[in-house]
Amino acid sequence: MTTLTDTLKRRRQQLAQLVDRPIVLWSGGYSSRNFPANTFPFRASSHFLYFAGLPLENAAIRLEAGKLTLFVAEASPTSALWHGASPTRDELAATIAADAAYPLSELKTQIEGAATIAVQDPLTRQEQSRWLNRAIASSKSPQGVDLELTEAIVRLRLTHDDAALAEMRKAAAVTVEAHRAGMAATSNANLEADIRGAMEQVIIANNMTCAYSSIVTVYGEVLHNDRYDHPVRSGDLLLADVGAETSTGWASDVTRTWPVSGKFSPTQRDLYNVVLAAHDACIAKIRPGVEYRDIHLLACQTIAQGLVDLGILKGQPADLVEMDAHALFFPHGVGHLLGLDVHDMEDLGDLAGYELGRTRSQRFGLGYLRLDRPLKSGMVVTIEPGFYQVPAILQDPNHRETYQHVVNWDRLAEFSDVRGIRIEDDVLVTETGAEVLTADLPTERGAIEHLVQP
Amino acid sequence: MTTLTDTLKRRRQQLAQLVDRPIVLWSGGYSSRNFPANTFPFRASSHFLYFAGLPLENAAIRLEAGKLTLFVAEASPTSALWHGASPTRDELAATIAADAAYPLSELKTQIEGAATIAVQDPLTRQEQSRWLNRAIASSKSPQGVDLELTEAIVRLRLTHDDAALAEMRKAAAVTVEAHRAGMAATSNANLEADIRGAMEQVIIANNMTCAYSSIVTVYGEVLHNDRYDHPVRSGDLLLADVGAETSTGWASDVTRTWPVSGKFSPTQRDLYNVVLAAHDACIAKIRPGVEYRDIHLLACQTIAQGLVDLGILKGQPADLVEMDAHALFFPHGVGHLLGLDVHDMEDLGDLAGYELGRTRSQRFGLGYLRLDRPLKSGMVVTIEPGFYQVPAILQDPNHRETYQHVVNWDRLAEFSDVRGIRIEDDVLVTETGAEVLTADLPTERGAIEHLVQP
Repeated sequence: MTTLTDTLKRRRQQLAQLVDRPIVLWSGGYSSRNFPANTFPFRASSHFLYFAGLPLENAAIRLEAGKLTLFVAEASPTSALWHGASPTRDELAATIAADAAYPLSELKTQIEGAATIAVQDPLTRQEQSRWLNRAIASSKSPQGVDLELTEAIVRLRLTHDDAALAEMRKAAAVTVEAHRAGMAATSNANLEADIRGAMEQVIIANNMTCAYSSIVTVYGEVLHNDRYDHPVRSGDLLLADVGAETSTGWASDVTRTWPVSGKFSPTQRDLYNVVLAAHDACIAKIRPGVEYRDIHLLACQTIAQGLVDLGILKGQPADLVEMDAHALFFPHGVGHLLGLDVHDMEDLGDLAGYELGRTRSQRFGLGYLRLDRPLKSGMVVTIEPGFYQVPAILQDPNHRETYQHVVNWDRLAEFSDVRGIRIEDDVLVTETGAEVLTADLPTERGAIEHLVQP
Repeated sequence: MTTLTDTLKRRRQQLAQLVDRPIVLWSGGYSSRNFPANTFPFRASSHFLYFAGLPLENAAIRLEAGKLTLFVAEASPTSALWHGASPTRDELAATIAADAAYPLSELKTQIEGAATIAVQDPLTRQEQSRWLNRAIASSKSPQGVDLELTEAIVRLRLTHDDAALAEMRKAAAVTVEAHRAGMAATSNANLEADIRGAMEQVIIANNMTCAYSSIVTVYGEVLHNDRYDHPVRSGDLLLADVGAETSTGWASDVTRTWPVSGKFSPTQRDLYNVVLAAHDACIAKIRPGVEYRDIHLLACQTIAQGLVDLGILKGQPADLVEMDAHALFFPHGVGHLLGLDVHDMEDLGDLAGYELGRTRSQRFGLGYLRLDRPLKSGMVVTIEPGFYQVPAILQDPNHRETYQHVVNWDRLAEFSDVRGIRIEDDVLVTETGAEVLTADLPTERGAIEHLVQP
């Protein structure tokens, strides 16, 4: 069994093979909520976490030739009173196999010529410039040595080692449990918030955090819905996109859609099965070498076919996808990288998601694709097709005109009890195909109904 | 019944009577968690909330002569897809009784000479300087017109109107329910996290947020303990400091300490009753005109008396308090202001907590007092005495020497099953005395045991 320190040392060695200069990565600091002592929960920079392994606040690591030097802020004299005894600098160094450890103030003597990546919190970002005595561009558009470093880190973080996968499996297991709790809580729920509470309770009780703001809504067509105050009524579909993150930052990202009553209506069932067919087809196609963009197009094709079969779209599925007609109902990408971030490395813009030389399409049906690379063994991606009736899309006069001959609006009106459906799993690309990390949570309609019914 | 808009208009009129110049208050923006699209939940500036009433992100209000002009960022073309249909600017203006409303970009034409208060998020703080074309000092040390504005806002926010109290009562009710859930969950809990999950579930299900990072721990002597991974064992005391905040930002702040087994040991019972006696004595003393510092000293005196009675301290309680011997076991202040912030207006440093001309004491037993003002009707304060055995204090050689003749260390050792006890309620100062907003949650030992036992 590989220990954490073995893993961390190997990651540092791998980085040393790609970057031949000193590197300094900061963890970042707390963000104030409404006054300085009332902060949001601390989240360390993912790049720091990848090499340091622990969410230390206000710390930095220097990496060079496979060696790690840790720099941590000195505890204030009163911190033992308010925050308890902290591990000493040397204890921290031993935990993460640092080769040396110093107070943060010593960083100035060892920072000359270092490459870095800008962190998210603005105050630490200012510190980065101050310590390095140069401007640091946004992490989306790094320059010079920082760009070289970014490209090297992307190369490492694109695929996951065993330690990373072990953490992601833990996050997935708790996420599965949270969704089961949400389904079980539905029959007694009045508001969306009741179901969210049941789900997040599981995550909190497992001493994890939410990897992102939960979506728990009967208005699934609002893709990033952040409200939880709507009543849940028999006849509604409930869409829950909720994922756990382990204490060292590894994420899960899962969506299920279930009927509040415990029973899909015939129209809900039909559209659910269209989305599920896309989900299953995409996962079946995953293996090393396959272009993720083609997985996305397979989802589009499968959804178009399903909507033709239901009489909602008219024409040949391939033609419909070519003209982006599927995007009327499935306007986002089929998924994204998953790792230390729920959209892994999205702090780097498209530097991680897009193969060098590729850029986002302007096409309606492709512009929201977050990942455009050939799959490699060890990558983890989400597969999350959906069907939505978004008023801002379907009532857009331009769309109505463009797609007037391929949509049967009268037939669509019969499916008015479906506002949004998404089915999302976390999938590891293996040597021979795919492993669904979240497979313990059913996707099949009958199994879902069984979990919801009291 | 007073409507929200009546309340907001009255607050604006009151401010106009105190400040005779234009005022611009910003709400602030989202703070990024690990990448720009993955943010912490938005929390608007409390000063903005007080006058605007709604947590609008990236907005500003201009106040002058009792009139309010609202400035809100224009929704991006894709925001309807991701975030759903938003209320229009005019709808928002009507909801909060704004006299006019413009896109945020128009602010530049109406900002000349305005006073402001610096917000918490650094990016918006930069924006404030940019818009006003001058340096804006930290909210703790405002200068010139900003100081005048700050003093006026403190004067208004120190006491609460009916609308504010209605919100705080809602927060208190949910907080009480959360504590009851935590007690009920204890007999089946393995880790502190299980109890935290049960408590925060209640807050989430009521569509509220936590007003601060919950403390749920068997190591209550760590005053701001942010770990939840310790096992809870029969024989331990569990200290839970958890409070809800309503959607418009009004807070509650409650602590209870209960035995994991459902039954206090004799030593736990004795010390619990000392803390409870201090809690009850302080609340009984609250009425307009009383100095909060004297409430704090009453808590110190009551605790010193109790510890003398138990044989832990030796001497006259008044003498012991005079020499800060109580602070060995009760090192923090007895409470603080409560309102839109859990430590209300602590973004202003001590400008709200301390009467003009008063400053923090350097004394061991008074330095952590957050409030030093005469009480006024309409103030809400917490009352939260405690008893802790903090190693960093009790093993400090200086303290051991200073207090060698007044502590019976052998007797103290018999109370080793008490690491930390705190009992905290939210108290409204009324015309004639006090009203405990959180009175529905028992403090009495037998009632607590009853709620914990399965």
